Amino acid sequence: MLVNVTKESLLHALQHVLKAVVANSPNPILSGIHIQAYEKALVFTASNTSMTIQYRVPEDKDSMNVQRTGGIVVPARYLSEIIRRLHAGWIAFESEEPFILSITSGDSHVRLCGLDPAEFPPVHSPSTDAEPACKFQIQNDVLRSAIRQVCVAASTSDSRPVLTGVSFEFTGENLSLMATDGIRFASRTLHTGYNINNGTNVIVPAKNINEIVKMLSDDKAATEIAVSRHQISFTANELHVQSVLIEGVFPSAVKNVIPQSCKSELLIGPYGFLQAVERVSVLAGGNIIRLTAASGKLVLLSGTSDIGEVRDEINLEAMEGDDFTIALNGRFLLDILRCLDSGSLRVRYTGKESPVVILTTDPLSPALFLITPVRTHD
Amino acid sequence: MLVNVTKESLLHALQHVLKAVVANSPNPILSGIHIQAYEKALVFTASNTSMTIQYRVPEDKDSMNVQRTGGIVVPARYLSEIIRRLHAGWIAFESEEPFILSITSGDSHVRLCGLDPAEFPPVHSPSTDAEPACKFQIQNDVLRSAIRQVCVAASTSDSRPVLTGVSFEFTGENLSLMATDGIRFASRTLHTGYNINNGTNVIVPAKNINEIVKMLSDDKAATEIAVSRHQISFTANELHVQSVLIEGVFPSAVKNVIPQSCKSELLIGPYGFLQAVERVSVLAGGNIIRLTAASGKLVLLSGTSDIGEVRDEINLEAMEGDDFTIALNGRFLLDILRCLDSGSLRVRYTGKESPVVILTTDPLSPALFLITPVRTHD
Repeated sequence: MLVNVTKESLLHALQHVLKAVVANSPNPILSGIHIQAYEKALVFTASNTSMTIQYRVPEDKDSMNVQRTGGIVVPARYLSEIIRRLHAGWIAFESEEPFILSITSGDSHVRLCGLDPAEFPPVHSPSTDAEPACKFQIQNDVLRSAIRQVCVAASTSDSRPVLTGVSFEFTGENLSLMATDGIRFASRTLHTGYNINNGTNVIVPAKNINEIVKMLSDDKAATEIAVSRHQISFTANELHVQSVLIEGVFPSAVKNVIPQSCKSELLIGPYGFLQAVERVSVLAGGNIIRLTAASGKLVLLSGTSDIGEVRDEINLEAMEGDDFTIALNGRFLLDILRCLDSGSLRVRYTGKESPVVILTTDPLSPALFLITPVRTHD
Repeated sequence: MLVNVTKESLLHALQHVLKAVVANSPNPILSGIHIQAYEKALVFTASNTSMTIQYRVPEDKDSMNVQRTGGIVVPARYLSEIIRRLHAGWIAFESEEPFILSITSGDSHVRLCGLDPAEFPPVHSPSTDAEPACKFQIQNDVLRSAIRQVCVAASTSDSRPVLTGVSFEFTGENLSLMATDGIRFASRTLHTGYNINNGTNVIVPAKNINEIVKMLSDDKAATEIAVSRHQISFTANELHVQSVLIEGVFPSAVKNVIPQSCKSELLIGPYGFLQAVERVSVLAGGNIIRLTAASGKLVLLSGTSDIGEVRDEINLEAMEGDDFTIALNGRFLLDILRCLDSGSLRVRYTGKESPVVILTTDPLSPALFLITPVRTHD
């Protein structure tokens, strides 16, 4: 391998693939970055076995040229620390001896001991995958907002793996994203514009998909999503990311417990609501905050004995139905409010022990959240 | 107490005093902030017993007015988290019941349980101190640069307390700052413009003084320093900080081991040197880097078996004397290079096992550093 590439292009590629590197893996190959020089492109790959990130730097007279093809795996941490400290401008990567990468930039010469690229986890090309069940495109800003909202409700405990994932459910041209940890539930429906077979439902690890959407920098561009039996892949320009799927059946029955009627409904401006919940959360013992809706206002209360209490109130844009008081986990409410894009919220009270329903009013991003209330003794 | 103060003024005051708050002190009063409303000022104080920070918000029609004097101590963490989340604009602090602070801003009402201000560590006013041995002023940017440079060499281990401090030694109109951890030594001399008694030498904890100089935001303003038998204080505008002194005798004999002659002397541009040392440090096993000066160049080498090696070189601005090779702790060298202001460096080689001397060439900031070389077997 002999390649010339600018520091800027290298850093850009590394910044993407580093997210899949395992910092101190017992298997050193997973702490490495696979660098492969093809005729017309230099490809960087990192994998933590659950997610594989690939970034392709195409040939370009101003930023990259390949003089001799070849591949190597080098320790990610050392590679990125060295590249960051080199002078701006051209950097030469050369590998003459097996598994040794020589890096040269100006008067700086680095020899980095590498590993055999044959040991690196293979990347399945989506085009060679035996059964690509479906393929479609979604605009980046829409995908990012939807994933952020739904991931809020995914579980972070490994005791039930299916709950750590986001369910992708295809119905006609619609894709329903859903997640729940048993106490919270979030769902959002996206229009794909492609008629996709029913039954190709998959569960994607929330942790992976959350990282993936953060990498989609160009809001108005689209990402191609390909779903097959054992993996899902996301392709956006030079970036290609694959994630494993979670085996199992998503508890879709949750959808059936969404209360269809309610005792009261509030219309609330999201920003003032978020700020008030943030304030009362500071002193919320056990994260519990109490909401009381009455006479066009929502009163928020929290307290911890020996420390103090907060009382806040916000004006409602509208209220229908009876006055009510309910106790919620303030952190769960904050998680939801922090990932909303814009527009007012509908908050539905369905009974003292039945979930609170939160709906966005923006018709382009119809998200639905449920929070099970906290049982209190008063 | 009844005070109206703007959120901005409050946050500014809190941001200063929070640095002395002990996060989870077994003594809750040290996790608190003392708020005292005087006729014409609101004074915030925090203390970790080693350092006390006081910030005074003066009466001003646009930002603070006192309607009723009084004092209270409230938990720092909760106070600052709440203030940050309140609306911009006026905030009212009221304490009617003993040790309860009511905070009101718009529709937000907070009651915070406080503590008895009588239990708070007393602040010694410099004017009432029995024996203020000396008092002088230094411009903030000069003081900050000097303290940063000298603190580099202070020890972080508590095994010999005097080595965790910076020695202030007064001679005529000069103040010599010195620190050493036994392997490194740093010194810088400042001209105070005041003739100060000989013999008023004190040792100030490096940790405290490092925090203090970071707070001196206005470069061209001056800070008043008052030294007495048991404490040193720094006053800059509305900020007043006191630090305890470290008992004991600073090993001033170190000064006498500064090599007066050398075998070679290099003149080096500091920025290129810093960058090269940063690069070779990435792969420096045991932090050891090797410097070789010959034919107008300085070659830097480091390596770790199984990982790799780096070779870097920089052009010297000048060199006198013999070629040499020496092994140094790269981290120690980086610490020094990172705190230099500008101008070239003189690096003096005084023998294979005798300290390397680094001198700044800027006559306005004459700093001197010693690093003991690492003994190697080649």
